[in-house]
Amino acid sequence: MSKLQQVQEWTAQHQVDFSYVSDPRTIQYLTGFYSDPIERVLALIIFPDQEPFMFAPALEVEAIKDTGFSFPVYGYLDHEDPWQRIADRVKERLAAPTKIALEKDQLSVARLEHLQHVFSGASFEADLTPFINNLRLIKTEAEIEKLKVAGKWADFAFEKGFAAVKAGRTEQSVVAELQYALMKKGIMQMSFDTLVQAGPHAAEPHGATNATKFENNELILFDLGTVWDGYISDASRTVALGKPTEKQLEIYKVCLEAQLTAQRAAKPGITAAALDKVARDIIEQAGYGDYFIHRLGHGMGMSEHEFPSIMAGNDMILKPGMCFSIEPGIYIPGIAGVRIEDCVHITANGCEPFTQTSKELTYVG
Amino acid sequence: MSKLQQVQEWTAQHQVDFSYVSDPRTIQYLTGFYSDPIERVLALIIFPDQEPFMFAPALEVEAIKDTGFSFPVYGYLDHEDPWQRIADRVKERLAAPTKIALEKDQLSVARLEHLQHVFSGASFEADLTPFINNLRLIKTEAEIEKLKVAGKWADFAFEKGFAAVKAGRTEQSVVAELQYALMKKGIMQMSFDTLVQAGPHAAEPHGATNATKFENNELILFDLGTVWDGYISDASRTVALGKPTEKQLEIYKVCLEAQLTAQRAAKPGITAAALDKVARDIIEQAGYGDYFIHRLGHGMGMSEHEFPSIMAGNDMILKPGMCFSIEPGIYIPGIAGVRIEDCVHITANGCEPFTQTSKELTYVG
Repeated sequence: MSKLQQVQEWTAQHQVDFSYVSDPRTIQYLTGFYSDPIERVLALIIFPDQEPFMFAPALEVEAIKDTGFSFPVYGYLDHEDPWQRIADRVKERLAAPTKIALEKDQLSVARLEHLQHVFSGASFEADLTPFINNLRLIKTEAEIEKLKVAGKWADFAFEKGFAAVKAGRTEQSVVAELQYALMKKGIMQMSFDTLVQAGPHAAEPHGATNATKFENNELILFDLGTVWDGYISDASRTVALGKPTEKQLEIYKVCLEAQLTAQRAAKPGITAAALDKVARDIIEQAGYGDYFIHRLGHGMGMSEHEFPSIMAGNDMILKPGMCFSIEPGIYIPGIAGVRIEDCVHITANGCEPFTQTSKELTYVG
Repeated sequence: MSKLQQVQEWTAQHQVDFSYVSDPRTIQYLTGFYSDPIERVLALIIFPDQEPFMFAPALEVEAIKDTGFSFPVYGYLDHEDPWQRIADRVKERLAAPTKIALEKDQLSVARLEHLQHVFSGASFEADLTPFINNLRLIKTEAEIEKLKVAGKWADFAFEKGFAAVKAGRTEQSVVAELQYALMKKGIMQMSFDTLVQAGPHAAEPHGATNATKFENNELILFDLGTVWDGYISDASRTVALGKPTEKQLEIYKVCLEAQLTAQRAAKPGITAAALDKVARDIIEQAGYGDYFIHRLGHGMGMSEHEFPSIMAGNDMILKPGMCFSIEPGIYIPGIAGVRIEDCVHITANGCEPFTQTSKELTYVG
C-alpha cells in the first residue's frame, strides 16, 4: 500500500471527511513533489473514499504534474483567495464536510482560522501529525539508500574541510572550500548551515561559523550535512590542529567513549531514554555531566527534526528502520567544545552509521 | 521608543495580559537575537507594565545574553516541558492571565493547544501579527543601510556568475563559482537557493537549478540574493549567451520596459495594485499577459516574504521606507523565461534600487 493510501485509510478509519495535508515535507513524502510555498498555499486534500487533489500556487502546477502526481492539481493566482477556492473544490465532492483533520504541528493558527471560516461548523479536532510522524519513523530500504548517499557526501565534505585547515585561516574559509568542493560535484544544498568552530569558539554549541582564525594547538569542531534526493546527512567531527592540551585530549577521549559505547548499544529493544543514559553516564562519571547540555540525538531522514528523540523521558523502544543521531558533546567555556556524531539506522541486531569518517582524533593542518 | 516598547504599548492598549512572541524573525527584529529553534521553543513574553522575558532552549541562553538582551532569560533542557515552565514564569508575575496575544501567522495549532492547556480559561483571540507586519513595513535608515550592503553583494555575485558562464558548463557549476566567490569574502548565506536557469529551463519560474548545460544562442536567468546582518537582497537578471532569437529579444525588451516603467512609477501615493498594473499593462498590450503568472513583487527586508505585496487587489498606498521587489517575468514554455528584478525602497519622491547591475541585455560567455 502506498504512503498516500495509508493516509487515505487513516482518514477513513477516523471518520474524517478529509485530511488537510499542509507540511511541505509531508507532501513530498506522500507524492514526491517538494516546494516550500512560504506565504502561498500548498495543500494535499485526502478523502476517505475518493481520489485526492493538490491545491497549489499557479506557478507550481506544471512542476507538480511533472513529478508524476496523477490526480487533479488546481492552481490559484496571487490575487485570488485560496481558501474560498479550496472550499469550492472540496464542496464539488462533498457538500458539507463536518470533520477535517489537520497537521497541527505545522499549520498556523491564522490558517486554521481561514479554514474555520470557509468550512464553518466543521470540527478540526482530528490531528494527522502523530500518524505522519509514525509513518516517517520507520524508514524503508529506498529511504535508507538515499540517507547512505547523503552520508557519503558528508564524508567527502569532511575530507575536503580537514584538508583546508591551516593556522591563520578563518573558519569561514574552510566552509567555503568544502562547500565549493561539494557544489562542483553537483551537491548544492547543505542540510543546515555548516559549522566550523575553532578552539574556545566551539564551546558555544549553537554559535555560528565566523571569521575566527585557527590557532595552533587547539581543537576544531565540524558539524555538517548534505541533501541527497530529499534526504539528509548530519555528522560532527572534532579534529586537532597542532598539539592540544592534556585537558582537551581528555575531553575528547571521554566524548569518544560515550559516542562509541552508545553506538554499540543502539539496537532493537533499547529505549531512546536508556540510550541517552548510556552516553550520559560515561560523561557524568568522568565529571563533565554539566557540560553535556543537550539530548544525545534527534531523529532524521528528510530533515534533522524527526522522531525518535534520543533523550531522557522518551520511552520509545528502538526498532529496525529508525534513523537518528548519536552526538554526545562536552562544551567547556574557554577551553574547548567537543562533539562527535554519526547518524545511524537501526538494523535487525544493531545499527549502522551513515558516515564512515574516522572518529579517532585526527590531526590536521 | 524602541520596537520592543512599541509592542509593549500595543499590549497595553489592547488590554492584553501578555503578548507571546514566537516568530524567530520578530524576536530578532525586537531584540537583535536570531535563532530558529525548529522543534524547540523560543518565546519572548511581553507584558503591558512589567519587563519582558525570553524563554529559550538552555543551549541558546548564553548567546541571547551576549547580544545585549538586558531582561531575564530562562532556559529549559530537552527533556523538560517548556509549556509548564513558561506558565510558571508568567504566573510568578501575573497569577491568572485572561487575555493572551499570539503571532497567529506563525504559531502552530499544536502550540496554541499547549498554551490553551497551561493557561486554561484564557482567551487567545488577540493577534499580534498585523501590528508586527505594520511595524516591519516601514524600514528605518539603519535597516535600509543593511539592505544596501546586501544589494552590493548581489551585484558582486552577478558579476562573478556572468563571468563563469560558458557553453557546455552546467547551471550548477555557475552557482558554485558565484557562491564560492561570496564565501571567500565571508558572505556565507544566500537569502534563498540561487537560481541559474538556461534557455527553456528558465520558463519554469519555480524550477530549480540543475545540471542543464548552457548552449549557444539562448537566454539565461539568474535570481539570487545574499544575507547581510539579518537583511537580505534579491535580484534577477536575464543575460544572453551568443545570439538569441528575435522572439527572445522581443520578450526581453517587453519585460525590461515593464520593469523600468514600474520602477519609475514607484513613489509615495501610488497603490500596490496600481503599480502591478503599470507593468502588467505593458506585458498584456504586447500580447504576453498569459505568460506573466505571478504578482509584480513582494515586500522584503529580513526575508523576501514581507509586506507590501505588489499585486492586484492590494490597495495599500506606498510610503517612504517601504521595500519590495519589482520583478515582471515572461515565461514561454520551450522558448525562454525572462525575469528582471530589482528590490527598491520608496523615497520622498520616488524609489531607489538596492542593486545596480545593468538591466540592458548583457552578453556573456
